[in-house]
Amino acid sequence: MEETTNMKDRNETATTLTQLRLAKRSPEYWRVTFDHPPLNIFGPEMLPQVNEIMTAIETDEQVKVVVFDSAVEGFFLIHLVHRPPGPTGLHPWPEILVRLSRAPVVSVAMIRGRTTGMGSELALACDMRFASREKAILSQFEVGAGFVPGGAPMARLSRLMGRGRALEVILSAEDVPGDLAELYGYVNRSLPDADLDRFVDALAARIASFDKQTLAHTKRLVNVASLPPDIEIESGWNACVASMAQPATQQRIKWLLERGFCKPGDAENHLGDFVGQVGR
Amino acid sequence: MEETTNMKDRNETATTLTQLRLAKRSPEYWRVTFDHPPLNIFGPEMLPQVNEIMTAIETDEQVKVVVFDSAVEGFFLIHLVHRPPGPTGLHPWPEILVRLSRAPVVSVAMIRGRTTGMGSELALACDMRFASREKAILSQFEVGAGFVPGGAPMARLSRLMGRGRALEVILSAEDVPGDLAELYGYVNRSLPDADLDRFVDALAARIASFDKQTLAHTKRLVNVASLPPDIEIESGWNACVASMAQPATQQRIKWLLERGFCKPGDAENHLGDFVGQVGR
Amino acid sequence: MEETTNMKDRNETATTLTQLRLAKRSPEYWRVTFDHPPLNIFGPEMLPQVNEIMTAIETDEQVKVVVFDSAVEGFFLIHLVHRPPGPTGLHPWPEILVRLSRAPVVSVAMIRGRTTGMGSELALACDMRFASREKAILSQFEVGAGFVPGGAPMARLSRLMGRGRALEVILSAEDVPGDLAELYGYVNRSLPDADLDRFVDALAARIASFDKQTLAHTKRLVNVASLPPDIEIESGWNACVASMAQPATQQRIKWLLERGFCKPGDAENHLGDFVGQVGR
Repeated sequence: MEETTNMKDRNETATTLTQLRLAKRSPEYWRVTFDHPPLNIFGPEMLPQVNEIMTAIETDEQVKVVVFDSAVEGFFLIHLVHRPPGPTGLHPWPEILVRLSRAPVVSVAMIRGRTTGMGSELALACDMRFASREKAILSQFEVGAGFVPGGAPMARLSRLMGRGRALEVILSAEDVPGDLAELYGYVNRSLPDADLDRFVDALAARIASFDKQTLAHTKRLVNVASLPPDIEIESGWNACVASMAQPATQQRIKWLLERGFCKPGDAENHLGDFVGQVGR
Repeated sequence: MEETTNMKDRNETATTLTQLRLAKRSPEYWRVTFDHPPLNIFGPEMLPQVNEIMTAIETDEQVKVVVFDSAVEGFFLIHLVHRPPGPTGLHPWPEILVRLSRAPVVSVAMIRGRTTGMGSELALACDMRFASREKAILSQFEVGAGFVPGGAPMARLSRLMGRGRALEVILSAEDVPGDLAELYGYVNRSLPDADLDRFVDALAARIASFDKQTLAHTKRLVNVASLPPDIEIESGWNACVASMAQPATQQRIKWLLERGFCKPGDAENHLGDFVGQVGR
Repeated sequence: MEETTNMKDRNETATTLTQLRLAKRSPEYWRVTFDHPPLNIFGPEMLPQVNEIMTAIETDEQVKVVVFDSAVEGFFLIHLVHRPPGPTGLHPWPEILVRLSRAPVVSVAMIRGRTTGMGSELALACDMRFASREKAILSQFEVGAGFVPGGAPMARLSRLMGRGRALEVILSAEDVPGDLAELYGYVNRSLPDADLDRFVDALAARIASFDKQTLAHTKRLVNVASLPPDIEIESGWNACVASMAQPATQQRIKWLLERGFCKPGDAENHLGDFVGQVGR
């Protein structure tokens, strides 16, 4: 039986937060579900919750695998409307991504629906990504909105799919559907939507049956070979913050917001087309 | 209306050079077209022109994207008959490739026809590569002719497609058709020939509508994650020059030239087969 | 005509060892065939033979290409039952893999049948891998058996297929059939079984016709761009040895051995399924 946990206090069993849920399918296999309808926008109020989950993942003595998924039809997780950051700003975001990649637990993103901006960055910080062939759409839309992506897709996509495809994905800011995401290595595999849940669940349960120390040690050695240096994550974040301050960027974001960006409707449902119009 | 520019003097509007043309589809979106029939051989006389284009790309305040294409049926751009280099030799070549990769402008190779040797190296130095599924053939034929490739495919292909496939492409010196080029990541994608122009044009126009500073800063961060160190480019060039001096290499090149290498006909149309015969 | 050589004494022409055969198709093109029925288990007694072949590959003045294949139906090469290592232990194994990758000779794994554990590691240390689409099954099963793989798939798979797919292959310990191996870049290509021998033979003969120095220099430059630092190989081996000492690991291996691991039958024919059961 699943145990659903409120992140405010992991000892309570009641669930009061609906934006983010942690369900323990077993002590070894956890699910984190984004449930922030209608768009699964990653809002700043989610940061402390995600941070708390990260700490739990890092310190729990039993958990071996965590699957991230969505309860919102059509959206895995999307961007936040960035504002000019204050002194605390969004700095926790790149740190959370770094911690997730380095955590001694296996993380899996199960991607169904739109996965842009921070959603894509979270998926890229996970250890593996599996997508719905029909229903997944990934993108880093930021360059189209006039700013440098802040969660290090430059560092991660380059290493995942090679320089040429990474530059295309990031600089075109275009939607990437399931088939292309698989061809490019943006995701491990795209599966028929009807098979996705079963596949990811079986994989997670399988990994959860293995030895925790062996999983952690082996992942650590893959990290040595594959993770970007932290300085690249930091530089990317700083470049994002700096680009946000440009008046041209603020104008692009304003143009987008006026046309429905961050609201249900055409703008978010066709974000790739949309950012292609802002500068014309 | 397009503005076509003579590279000898960018202030003239007349076009006197036919080997290489620069056309500005808009101030932000340029096309560089190789037009050196019948084979689009990269001759040494092209180097100053390419150098001048590189300087323009690096310093122009408006250009955001440059597409490289060919006006010669059957050939995108191919090799130069290397000669034992003099004191100046071809040293500008690796430098041009390095500058193209680092330029604060997005470069796209639109590949139709044979793309070997320096043609492949130019395409690899571009930020993205799109190929005609039916009409593109890429290769690094050099090892088959007895010399180390000079324009750093060892550095770039290894990072683009992984060690195993890079070693196969480079050490087999074999022709790589569009489908295989896509599977291996030699190109971003291979498209049906009928769709290629429209696709590349739409992508270039889209990128040209984005913010120049944001494109440049974002590309710079991808460069940190993905470009080979300059020393690898330099070492490759030195190894190429050294291998050229071997008598065995000179004999292979002589054998090839006697059978039509660098002339229109079977040798160039089936270069992969051809270099497979030289040592038998 | 082929010359078959006994590794105990390369000057003898008689073949007394059946586990491993070296056949010289020509002075330039060698074949190393694993022939240790019924499972082609890599036994410790093979190490000195492989070591001797490595020395021959490194020092022979004529050999340019070496193809590794199997004479055992259903198995390319599989794991050794690891025992807690003594002072000499298996240390030669990672060293052999490093030497193979750095050898100034082109190595090709022709993969038909099960290729797990050390078999996969040997294939990954080769310069290229070609697989039977129908008959190849690759895996790193070790994590499922409770220990860190010792032959550096963490270092090599990460660079070959990217972090996400490498983590999936290694941490899931799952069987990877030919199609998926090609999609992930685990192998260069998977070919129809009926075409595999001809393809690999033609490629090897082609490379054998090229200039030995040019092959060696070019490969050396690809190595600079693509080989993991030796320290990663060493760390992986040490982590493997350490994990072997865990009581939980010994229990998993005992469970597996009791159910037919390392013997002909279901356990080895369905190893992926099998290691998925050990911890349930």
